[in-house]
Order: sequence, then C-alpha cells, then structure tokens
Amino acid sequence: MKTDRNIPYKIYLSEEEMPKQWYNVRADMKTKPAPLLNPGTGEPLKAEELAPIFCEDLVAQELDNDTPYIDIPEEIRTCYKTFRPSPLVRAYFLEEALGTPAKIYYKYEGNNTSGSHKLNSAMAQAYYAKKQGLKGVTTETGAGQWGTALSMACSLFGLDCKVYMVKVSYEQKPFRREVMRTYGASVTPSPSMTTEIGKKILAEHPGTTGSLGCAISEAVEAATTHEGYRYVLGSVLNQVLLHQSVIGLEAKTALDKYGVKPDIIIGCAGGGSNLGGLIAPFMGQKLRGEADYRIIAVEPASCPSLTRGKYAYDFCDTGKVCPLAKMYTLGSGFIPAPNHAGGLRYHGMSPVLSELYDEGLMEATSVVQTDVFAAAEQFARVEGILPAPESSHAIRVAIDEALKCKETGEEKTILFGLTGTGYFDMFAYEKFHNGEMTDYIPTDEELAASFATLPKVGC
Amino acid sequence: MKTDRNIPYKIYLSEEEMPKQWYNVRADMKTKPAPLLNPGTGEPLKAEELAPIFCEDLVAQELDNDTPYIDIPEEIRTCYKTFRPSPLVRAYFLEEALGTPAKIYYKYEGNNTSGSHKLNSAMAQAYYAKKQGLKGVTTETGAGQWGTALSMACSLFGLDCKVYMVKVSYEQKPFRREVMRTYGASVTPSPSMTTEIGKKILAEHPGTTGSLGCAISEAVEAATTHEGYRYVLGSVLNQVLLHQSVIGLEAKTALDKYGVKPDIIIGCAGGGSNLGGLIAPFMGQKLRGEADYRIIAVEPASCPSLTRGKYAYDFCDTGKVCPLAKMYTLGSGFIPAPNHAGGLRYHGMSPVLSELYDEGLMEATSVVQTDVFAAAEQFARVEGILPAPESSHAIRVAIDEALKCKETGEEKTILFGLTGTGYFDMFAYEKFHNGEMTDYIPTDEELAASFATLPKVGC
Repeated sequence: MKTDRNIPYKIYLSEEEMPKQWYNVRADMKTKPAPLLNPGTGEPLKAEELAPIFCEDLVAQELDNDTPYIDIPEEIRTCYKTFRPSPLVRAYFLEEALGTPAKIYYKYEGNNTSGSHKLNSAMAQAYYAKKQGLKGVTTETGAGQWGTALSMACSLFGLDCKVYMVKVSYEQKPFRREVMRTYGASVTPSPSMTTEIGKKILAEHPGTTGSLGCAISEAVEAATTHEGYRYVLGSVLNQVLLHQSVIGLEAKTALDKYGVKPDIIIGCAGGGSNLGGLIAPFMGQKLRGEADYRIIAVEPASCPSLTRGKYAYDFCDTGKVCPLAKMYTLGSGFIPAPNHAGGLRYHGMSPVLSELYDEGLMEATSVVQTDVFAAAEQFARVEGILPAPESSHAIRVAIDEALKCKETGEEKTILFGLTGTGYFDMFAYEKFHNGEMTDYIPTDEELAASFATLPKVGC
Repeated sequence: MKTDRNIPYKIYLSEEEMPKQWYNVRADMKTKPAPLLNPGTGEPLKAEELAPIFCEDLVAQELDNDTPYIDIPEEIRTCYKTFRPSPLVRAYFLEEALGTPAKIYYKYEGNNTSGSHKLNSAMAQAYYAKKQGLKGVTTETGAGQWGTALSMACSLFGLDCKVYMVKVSYEQKPFRREVMRTYGASVTPSPSMTTEIGKKILAEHPGTTGSLGCAISEAVEAATTHEGYRYVLGSVLNQVLLHQSVIGLEAKTALDKYGVKPDIIIGCAGGGSNLGGLIAPFMGQKLRGEADYRIIAVEPASCPSLTRGKYAYDFCDTGKVCPLAKMYTLGSGFIPAPNHAGGLRYHGMSPVLSELYDEGLMEATSVVQTDVFAAAEQFARVEGILPAPESSHAIRVAIDEALKCKETGEEKTILFGLTGTGYFDMFAYEKFHNGEMTDYIPTDEELAASFATLPKVGC
C-alpha cells in the first residue's frame, strides 16, 4: 500500500470557496435546447402557462437561455452548507488495484441522508416554493431518492410535501417510505384513489402496481387541484440542471486548486441531472473554445435513450399530461425491463444534454447491469464507498478507460460523478452475489414499437 | 433562517491536522482499570494467554496502562484518509429550532459506508492482523455495524473475514448481510453447525434465533481452531477505546482551531467505545487537572449498566468463554427487552469507563426509547442527518441540556457524539411513526435475578 501521495485523498472546499452562483450552460450554447411545447396547440409554452404547475422563479429559470450565471440565494447557500461541499476524492486505492497510470477522481454526492445529488435541486425548489408563499409541493418518486431529498428540503423550509410513490416501490421499499415519513412527508402509493387520474387507472387496471408515468400524472393533478401547491420534478428540466451545476462548479474549483485538468469526464445518465450538473462548467469552457474535454454519458443497455433513441419531440410522462420536450427518447411508451436494477429507467433525456450530444459535444455509451455490478463491487472493496447502481454505470466506464491507459501507458486524468450510495439497493446486490442477475437489451423490433408512440407534433 | 454565522457549519481538518498518535487515557488514570482475569484461575491474564485469541500488537495495547501516546502506523493513517477526518458540525439549525442560547456541536462519525465509528478500530485491528501475517479474523455482529466495518477493513487489507451474525438479525436484516458480502466477508447465522459450541446450543435449543453471547462464543472458537486466524472485538476492550480516541482528538483539534471549549460532553454508551473515544483527550485534561468538563454517558433505560448496575468482575459474554472483566454490569445473564431498538444492548461497560465513572469523573443517565426516537426525528428534520437509534440517546440529552440553557439563559457549549446513521433501522422508525413503540424499564427484581449470575471470583 502506497502511503506517500501529494494530492489529498479528499478535497473539501471551505465555505468561502463554495459557489455563489449557478452556471447556466444554455447561455453558451449556440443552438439552444428546443422549447417545451403545449401538447394541445403544439406551440411553445409561455411562462403564464407553466405558472399553475411550477413555482414562478423556477419557471423563469426554466425559460432563461441567456443568463450565464444566476445567483444562488443566501438561504439556499445556507442550506447547502448542511451537506455541502461534497468531497472530490482521489481514487488512489482504485488506481493501485487496477495498476493503471491513469489518475482517477470522483465527485461524491452520496454524503447526505437522501443518499444522492438530488438534494441540490430539492433545496432550491423548496426555497422558491416557500418564497412564493406556497403551502406545499407535490412530486412523484420511483426508487425514492428524489422523494427523500424533497422531504428533507421541505422539512427544513416548513413546507408540506406530498409524494406519490410508485406502488411497487412503496411496497418493496418500506424503508425509503419511512425515511420520507421521518421528514414529515405524506407518502401515497400510486395509483391511488386521491386523484381522478388515479381512480381512472385503478378502474381500468385494478391490480396495477403503478408506474412513474402514472405517479407523475397524479402529482401534477394534486398540485393543480390543491390551493397553494405546485409540482416539482427532480430531473430532466433545465432548472434542475442549473441547480445541479453546483456539482461541477465545486469539482472544477477543487481541481483548479491543485492545477489538475481532467482529460475525460464521465457520468451516468438517466434523466440527465447529475451528468448535466457535473459537466456544466467544463462544457462551458468547451463551448467557448477555452478548453477541450472528452465527455462520456453512460446509460444502461436496457434503457438506451442516447445511444439508440430518436431526437424528437415526446411526452415527458407516460400519462401524457406533461408538456412535450425535444429530446433523445425511446418513446414515452417504452417500459424498461422489470429485471433492471435501480434508476436510470427514464425513456428520455434532458433537452440540454440531448442538444449537446446531437452536436457531437459529448459521447454516449451503454453498459449491461452485470458488468455494472461487477464494477460496483470492485470499487467498494478498495474505495470503501458502497455505490448506487446508477452511479456504478459511471464507475464501469471509468475503470474501462483506466484499463485502456494501462495498455497504452497514458497518464490520463479521469473525473467521474459518484452520485449516490446503494444502501437501499441491497436486493439488487443480493441478486448479483447469488448469480441471479441477468442482462436485458431491447431488440430493434421492441424499440420500433415504442418509437411508434412518439407524437406527431413539433417534429 | 439566520444566514450570518462565524464558525463554519462543518469543520473538516486537513490531512496534516489529522492525529498521528492515539491517546491512551489509562496512562493518566491514578487508579488503572482492573486487569482481565482468567476465568479458571482468577489470576490476571498474561500476554501469552491472550496471544492465541488476539493479535500480538493488540494484546500489547490491551495491557499497556502507561504509554500516553501511541503512534498510529502510517498504513492505518492512510486508510483513515479514505473516510476521515469526520466533520465536526455546528448544529445551527437545531439551536434555532430549540430557541436556545446554547451552542451545540456534534462529531459525526456516520459519514462512511459502515455507517458508524466502528471503522476506526476495524481498520486498526485488520492492519495488525495483516502485519502479523495472519490469514484472517473472526468476529460476531448483532445489528451489523461492527461486522460491516470489519468487512470493509479486511477487504482493504486482503484478509479473510468470518462474521458470526446473530440468526435473528441475519434473517431480519438481509441488507446488512449483503453489504458484508459485497466486501467479501463470509457471514454465518449463529448458532451454526460450523462450531462445537454452535452444535451444542442447537442440540439443546433447536429453534433458537441466537444471541450476541452465543455468536461471540462461536467466533472465538473459530479463531482458535483455524490456523492463522484471530478473534477481534468492536467495543468494551481497552485497545478499542485507544483506537477510538481519534474521534475525540479530531474533535478537540477542530474546536481548538476556533477557540471553543465545551462545557458539557455527551455520548451514548453501550460497550463504551464511542464515548470512550470521544471523551479521551478531554478526560485526559481533567485527570491531569488542566481543565474541567461535565461528561455525561447516556444509556437506554432498558439496559442501564452504569446507572443501575454493579461494579464487579463479570463475564464479557453470555457463553462465559471470554475473560472476566471488572466493570459496571447487569450480569452476563441479563437479556435486554426484545422490543428494544438498535444497539446499546450490552450487559456491561468498558472497564476504563467503569473506573472513571466509579471515581465520579463522569456522570451517567438513562432515557426511554420513545423519548429517544422523538429526539431523533426532531434532529433529522432540522439537521438533515438521519441518526442511528444508538446515537439518538446522546441527541436526547443534548437537546434536554440545551433546553435547560433556554430556561436559565446560559450560553453553554455542548459537544455530543453522533456515532452513526439509521438507514438500517427503519423498522424501528416505522414502529415509532405508527405509535407502536413501547418503553421498558427492568424491575428491581429482574435486575436482582441477573445480578445472581455474577461470578464469585475476583470480587
């Protein structure tokens, strides 16, 4: 075991070094992400159409394609101090285990009770809801990371929090549900009898265990039918990527302090909030022609929106109540294989990242889950941290790139995003340990069928 | 929400500021803790009698009552860097919620995958086992924090790790078991057919779900009957308190940097490893007459070894295979109520802490679990961290002391130990949320019956 190492194992910024502004990558994009469309008219949505659903400051952030730096309000910065800065970790032990000349860093966002980066946007969205004088917010959650993060943020700001949790998760992940209740949230299994859309779905499919699309529809209905409530979302949207830029800004400040410039930046991609946040300031440099980086999005082979999807307008939810977004998508009718572990199950991809990918400013690759869990276990055994399955997609590709460096002898610097912990994913780990985990890759025919669900508008 | 605060929310030491030596409080004690006795002869155990069970360097540390500072080997300091320094947190949000003039700090040891402070000693014990050229180590685990910590440490040092897990926990906490397997440990439900003592117990009690005492007996047998193995323990022993002094040393360095001196230091106490570690350097000052502090041990009312136990020689395990230790004890036959949530179920208390308490150098108090969970939830909602039930005993008393300050207007500084997270304790939180949690306080008659199990030797 080597013991002489110049750069610290973990770099923590001081409170003074923490970002005071978010970075809005859209301001530096020559081609802006396509606007959200009203599904009825096919016209771009205006602020006043979004205001009944989203908080007003968040609507402004959603539509702002021009302001590069947006102040983080003092109250949000204060709340960030309860769980940030997150450490930038030098993976000395992993480098040694791989025998690679590559230098590996990861930005670790799992160091808070929600267990993921989701808290960065939850704190911001709860603050703006409180500032607007709202009583509370509604949202949906699948695996539960976003619901937990939002519950924590609402508890800090004294807001009511109504979480619609996909019924199968509600039943299979009772611990996640109890964490949310500890923070005072009300958690309703979806579909439920508390909404019209829920009643309709239950009447049509009495035994259904729910879906994320259905939970979104219920949460939106609850927000628009309760006085003083708005709906909030944990990924995909421009505003969420803006808030998550704090990840990349902190990572870049920490690297700059030690004069380190990454060659390759890697992140897992589901809806895109983590990847979009991690790469933001680096992509900004790339867009302005100040620096170049290889940027790699990693998605599951079972839900390959960037690598096998179409760049087209699509519904953000399977219930088709949300606006249309132009994005790389598998079609809102796409349902990931049930054996798929953890998150990254979303059929589409953030419009910002979709545009950047379409312009060739970043790469994308997909990996199968047994390879992902092998990387997760290899990582845990030397770096200590038990990674979430989502995060482990990035670990897989970081290890693969480091092993390529071993072959070529190149001393490349790799930065990846470690978005969260796997404490609530031990069923999946157990399957992996017992050799019961299988891989699934959709066939071209299956994808063709789900592409047929794409709407005809706005193309 | 106040936003102008001088002392950082979280104080992280730099790598250079991290302790390079552990502090051995025994060196400053006028009356040393009583020696371990051979249960057969009633004579103090010598190093050569302990060597077949424990690693040789650890035996030396166990018996060393004289050396105040012991170097932390470079390799252990390197491993500590993967999860230390742990943050010292200023509980601004809790202070504000309580409306207290008290200043509250907590040393948070849950920021690692084991979820607790146990990793501090696990890393040290695994290192010494490796240094001795052993193949592996054996241990027992109840709730699983210690087993997880040891699995992580063994994985880093390339040691085999055999964990005997109390059968009821093995079955009820499959996630904990899978975390240990992720780190490569073999986990055996206890009692098992892999040891003679296990076979004997199973023959006598075919349906038993096990106990910690039984698991200790199996782990010790496995260590002494496998070539190249030793037994390791996560609490109670002098060596463990020595390793855990890193908690207090870091906390004191962080406070000293900002010129802060605590008035009251509070820790939960089960076997005593966390409390002993947290208070070590402060107690050292007190013993040397350099400073004074109020030090409070908090134990569950259902397992009150300090507040209602006897200071006497007793077996460390219910199976009576371990040495005798002089400690505050409820009798090794004492079984905590089955409704008791989380850890702190040990019948005795570290001999070091027992002696310090007996001399009046620290106080002890006990709390009932419904009050503990109320404090846990109040804390989580403002500080964000979801605390372990064990840690929440300290939170309860810290809040109570802060509320006393509110009444008197005193601006006391309170430091408490937040030993870990409650991710794997959500069954207990669920009971609390549903109003199904009850309290239990043993009667005097029940304690008299368990005191009758005390051995007659060494008194």
